[in-house]
Amino acid sequence: MNIAKTIKETRQIVQQWKNENLTIGFVPTMGYLHEGHASLIRRAAEENDRVVVSVFVNPIQFGPSEDLDKYPRDIEMDKRICEANGAHLIFVPGVDELYPFGFSTYVDVEGPSKGLCGGSRPGHFRGVCTVVAKLFHIVQPDSAFFGMKDAQQLAVIRRMTEDLCFPVRIVGCPIVRESDGLALSSRNNYLNDVERKAALCLSQGLDEGLRLIENGERNTHVIKSAVRKKIEQEPLARVDYVEAVDPNTIQGIDYIKESILCAVAVFIGNTRLIDNFIWEEA
Amino acid sequence: MNIAKTIKETRQIVQQWKNENLTIGFVPTMGYLHEGHASLIRRAAEENDRVVVSVFVNPIQFGPSEDLDKYPRDIEMDKRICEANGAHLIFVPGVDELYPFGFSTYVDVEGPSKGLCGGSRPGHFRGVCTVVAKLFHIVQPDSAFFGMKDAQQLAVIRRMTEDLCFPVRIVGCPIVRESDGLALSSRNNYLNDVERKAALCLSQGLDEGLRLIENGERNTHVIKSAVRKKIEQEPLARVDYVEAVDPNTIQGIDYIKESILCAVAVFIGNTRLIDNFIWEEA
Repeated sequence: MNIAKTIKETRQIVQQWKNENLTIGFVPTMGYLHEGHASLIRRAAEENDRVVVSVFVNPIQFGPSEDLDKYPRDIEMDKRICEANGAHLIFVPGVDELYPFGFSTYVDVEGPSKGLCGGSRPGHFRGVCTVVAKLFHIVQPDSAFFGMKDAQQLAVIRRMTEDLCFPVRIVGCPIVRESDGLALSSRNNYLNDVERKAALCLSQGLDEGLRLIENGERNTHVIKSAVRKKIEQEPLARVDYVEAVDPNTIQGIDYIKESILCAVAVFIGNTRLIDNFIWEEA
Repeated sequence: MNIAKTIKETRQIVQQWKNENLTIGFVPTMGYLHEGHASLIRRAAEENDRVVVSVFVNPIQFGPSEDLDKYPRDIEMDKRICEANGAHLIFVPGVDELYPFGFSTYVDVEGPSKGLCGGSRPGHFRGVCTVVAKLFHIVQPDSAFFGMKDAQQLAVIRRMTEDLCFPVRIVGCPIVRESDGLALSSRNNYLNDVERKAALCLSQGLDEGLRLIENGERNTHVIKSAVRKKIEQEPLARVDYVEAVDPNTIQGIDYIKESILCAVAVFIGNTRLIDNFIWEEA
């Protein structure tokens, strides 16, 4: 497995693969990899000749009061997980490599960036889109793999890729959960034992909503209330949002017709966690 | 020479060339081609195996009160000029092909988009960058050729290309002028005979500025005053701006050290024309 710190090294390796007509799968990450990321790497390896993983805690997608500085990092663990799951190259740039002095170009996706995390985290998706656009140009993948836990991010990246005609196929991969239901997240690392138990309220609230839909409920206001009520039974939980939206446009829906993204963001202590499900009419 | 109206057709032709390891030069235009464009096409053909020209009057780079509807169009003439100068493919998409329903992604270059035309035409460079990003992804050129008449556009495109790591080399090509000095522009077509003569004030004003610099003047306020005074001797001229800026950052400069972009925008009747020179210390 190769490790590249610079754009130039990455381009050289990628170009060699392209000259050999090998397909490239790409998994962009912020590191501190877990089984969710591992599932993306394995999927990329199944579908491509070569797999590139980027590990970069992207400062421009964090707000001024967010957890950029304390975001967990462990590059040695990341290397082991990449290698064990079939990656061929890790790209680990420094901040100055991607944002040198004078940097001033940004990519904005207007529609699906509104609402949900776009409301709570202004500028977040601008930062995500900008870094993903850069990484797509550096890695030039055939396919890129994103987790569905970040459902809005996936919708925004799909929109950007289609709108700007990136020659990249976007693949959304299922949420990976602990055995008790907690969605895997690098931010779970912030939770102490009591908070870890409290964090189950996200998946339990969502389960409550899914149960209602499967029993025939189609009014999203009823569903959202039930999800919120379940989450708020947990005293350590503070709801940021509970929303029911179109999975592609991220626009609010009052009444479910074909499909729904039910998404929650909840603070457990100081840690903000997200989770969701997508339900589609069979 | 091929003519493609869709992204899909263009991609197919380009992919075939890429499979044959042919290099691709790209000349993005708004059509109504003149000798300035022809010089870009010839340069692209000299330096590349294949040349793609796009002809697209990009609505999102026009302001609401600008000349989108009356912008001159003559696709048959454009085809002849492309063919005669060595193009292999013209991409002529309709507006719906590039901006289908739901389109919502934009590329913003903050630094060099400020001032000059960015001040007079808010949103203009956002529109330019967005369409150029799309076209780069569709055509996937090795090199792209831009005229230096649009000096700020060239600076903005260079900045975008570097910031977002597009794998494209940007080539700026010299301004082509009529024998009396008028810089070629599709908008010259708007001028009647009297206005055509009046339009010489742009190049004559700039000549005055260049003469001062060559005689040792380095204070840009003195230079700008002289340029403006010369232009304003023409009764049909209304100055939009006369500026002296860094050619890369487009930031105002008080005193010339190494290089200067002296740029003017002037209304002749209802027609807004631009022109410029770049001077560099020998």
